[in-house]
Amino acid sequence: MKEQEYEVSVPIAALATPWAESAIAMIRISGDDVVRLVSKIFSSPQRLIEAEGNSAIYGKILSCDDKAAEIDEVLLFVFRSPNSFTGEESVEISCHGSLPGIKLILDALFAVGIRAALPGEFTFRAFMNGKVDLTEAEAICDLVKSKTVKSHSLALHRLGGAVFKIIDDIKNKILDIVSLVELQLDYPGDEIEDDTELDLGSFSQIIDNIEALADTYATGRIFQDGIRVALCGQTNSGKSSIFNMFLKEDRSIVSDIHGTTRDYLESMISLRGIPITLFDTAGIRVSADPIEMEGIRRAQEVIDGSDIIVYVVDSVKGVELQDDDFMKQFEDRKILRVWNKADLSSDKLPDGFVSFSAVTGLGFADLENSIVKLASVSELTGNEALIDSARQKSLLDSAAVSMKLAVDAVKSGESTDVVALYLKESLDSLGEITGEVTSADILHNIFGKFCLGK
Amino acid sequence: MKEQEYEVSVPIAALATPWAESAIAMIRISGDDVVRLVSKIFSSPQRLIEAEGNSAIYGKILSCDDKAAEIDEVLLFVFRSPNSFTGEESVEISCHGSLPGIKLILDALFAVGIRAALPGEFTFRAFMNGKVDLTEAEAICDLVKSKTVKSHSLALHRLGGAVFKIIDDIKNKILDIVSLVELQLDYPGDEIEDDTELDLGSFSQIIDNIEALADTYATGRIFQDGIRVALCGQTNSGKSSIFNMFLKEDRSIVSDIHGTTRDYLESMISLRGIPITLFDTAGIRVSADPIEMEGIRRAQEVIDGSDIIVYVVDSVKGVELQDDDFMKQFEDRKILRVWNKADLSSDKLPDGFVSFSAVTGLGFADLENSIVKLASVSELTGNEALIDSARQKSLLDSAAVSMKLAVDAVKSGESTDVVALYLKESLDSLGEITGEVTSADILHNIFGKFCLGK
Repeated sequence: MKEQEYEVSVPIAALATPWAESAIAMIRISGDDVVRLVSKIFSSPQRLIEAEGNSAIYGKILSCDDKAAEIDEVLLFVFRSPNSFTGEESVEISCHGSLPGIKLILDALFAVGIRAALPGEFTFRAFMNGKVDLTEAEAICDLVKSKTVKSHSLALHRLGGAVFKIIDDIKNKILDIVSLVELQLDYPGDEIEDDTELDLGSFSQIIDNIEALADTYATGRIFQDGIRVALCGQTNSGKSSIFNMFLKEDRSIVSDIHGTTRDYLESMISLRGIPITLFDTAGIRVSADPIEMEGIRRAQEVIDGSDIIVYVVDSVKGVELQDDDFMKQFEDRKILRVWNKADLSSDKLPDGFVSFSAVTGLGFADLENSIVKLASVSELTGNEALIDSARQKSLLDSAAVSMKLAVDAVKSGESTDVVALYLKESLDSLGEITGEVTSADILHNIFGKFCLGK
Repeated sequence: MKEQEYEVSVPIAALATPWAESAIAMIRISGDDVVRLVSKIFSSPQRLIEAEGNSAIYGKILSCDDKAAEIDEVLLFVFRSPNSFTGEESVEISCHGSLPGIKLILDALFAVGIRAALPGEFTFRAFMNGKVDLTEAEAICDLVKSKTVKSHSLALHRLGGAVFKIIDDIKNKILDIVSLVELQLDYPGDEIEDDTELDLGSFSQIIDNIEALADTYATGRIFQDGIRVALCGQTNSGKSSIFNMFLKEDRSIVSDIHGTTRDYLESMISLRGIPITLFDTAGIRVSADPIEMEGIRRAQEVIDGSDIIVYVVDSVKGVELQDDDFMKQFEDRKILRVWNKADLSSDKLPDGFVSFSAVTGLGFADLENSIVKLASVSELTGNEALIDSARQKSLLDSAAVSMKLAVDAVKSGESTDVVALYLKESLDSLGEITGEVTSADILHNIFGKFCLGK
């Protein structure tokens, strides 16, 4: 079967709220003539058809086959083109959050000729209809998936056009140079000054601007996607008390412990606004028990997949041979060594360790600071324009490369049209970030990552 | 701390959609002056304050402390009293379904003096403001929690006033008799005919009506709450293939398998509209392995908590001593015996067994029919008025008892005021069902079962 492609105008519908029992659910509908289509299964069709934009109408959704059969009591919100999220005529159905009810309403919508929306298709349409550029469209997806207040605020800032504005500024600076270059192409030779008149200072300023934005990716990505931190160490080294301390200290836990298995615990916490998935792994030890071995194997998988390893040593026992073996195994990884139960130990703190006591709480701030430091993120106010998309990063890198090639071409006295070519390459890369230059494949990749109903 | 009590008018807010990442989330706000309160944290306060009822306004939610800090881009839906769900002035915020974002908006609302709504408090207000009676209010909760299309349709029917109407009719009939009785109280003695003039036929008709509605509880409860069916039997008797067959056949699965543990599988299916939680338990057997014993213990808990036991016997092996032992254990339970792998067996089908083959599918309809029969539900069209609430059932029973006492009083020639007393008791019980007669405690019990934001 051919994969369904993103389209504009064609009537689409999707549940925009989570598929779960709740007080209210919201079904989103967008496309040509959707008000009339929905009126076919609405108890007051004429009132709906005549409804003004941005108005709410109370009524009942009826079965498509049997108009006597009521499906749900609903509120319909009507939006008239172009004053809607997608820019198209739109209806939002606010219904009871009943699973069979939601399914019945969607089926009724499909029966009157509305098709199921693809993930991200509403935002795709907002983009195609000029409501948002691609950086803003991507920010909508980021916003929904943001895990901490800080990642939320960064995404909202992008959605407000922060990244778009920087790229637009850079593009305008390049366009200024392009105008100069084109002037030389139009009036070559002695009519105006020669190539060297191009101010290379403005080139390098542009390159700096591009690279500065590209450099925000490292931090932006971490605030959006978060990092995985694995607590490991020998049994009874006190991993669990550290895990619980993080859970207790964290005032903005988004989800509670959700992956309790026999093998490891998992929880999402916010550490200075960085979303951190914290794992408390099984104690690492050699075992002959097959079930215990399986647990250790899974813990090993978690450790392998983590960004930062927090290795916990019981300071009362000191660093044992087994600890050395394990820490050696992680030598090329980001590792934080914790000297736990420091309140009980009289030993001197070994080099490279952070001292900690779950009982007194002493050293917890150090522990947090060390994790943030290992994560290598910059301190943020939340108003910065950071990119978090690998796509944007790679296009910025390309734009910088093209600009550098343009500089080389100028320096080596290449002809003006070669310089113009590189400048245009750079513009194209930047235009692809904001979506002026694009293709169906690119859009499919971007919007395919969205959640349904967005 | 004193338990928060349900109130009207006081501004309240709650998330009405599930607490999960999604395209859209909806926050509901209701109470006196909420439009003005929300305008304090809205980017276009004046437009909001002047907004007509049933209109939508696009804008931004701002931080209460720092008006420069945007929290989210939102759509506000404004409802003016009495044209809202609660009957009060209301605002619904349609925001991005971001967890930190939702939390920030709620915090901003709380900061301007709106308190967190209690579960069911919106519907409580709809009831207090005469928008719905108690049977309709309870139906809203049922609707959200309905598991199958049929339970959804029964709840919607109740929400439409089906149960209310029946009770109202019964009440009117009782009131007719009360008028007659009161006439006799006002003009006692020989001025009008004596007590025996009261038509006992109308009494018994009323009792029949009350009991008929009370009797719908058995079926109504099952369609709303569903039943638990446990598949059990020896290891390799073929429980899992039956479990999978149910999952495959069921065209309206609401949730996929969600409780996969080492001990049992669990899935919600719809069998002729009856919501069934189906359990595939671990094979029952004697074991010395402590982990296996733990699994068997948990399977036993599932069996003990189930309404119907489907005991599966491998017909190739026949009924073994161990099977007999286990089936004897379940003798006083609703049990369905399945003669599995019937395609492979040459043995005669034993009495009391249903023949089944997962390979050929033969006997599956019998299996389904037998479960429905064991569930003792009536066949339904979906348009019946069924009650599903233990509260309503018990009040109907009381109403019937009072009516019977009234009959006895008439028959034994008791004085008219005794008859009137019983009739009023009956009316009170019925009035408590619809909410005319009620107390804070009763309401707290009813609405406390609702989900948040409803």
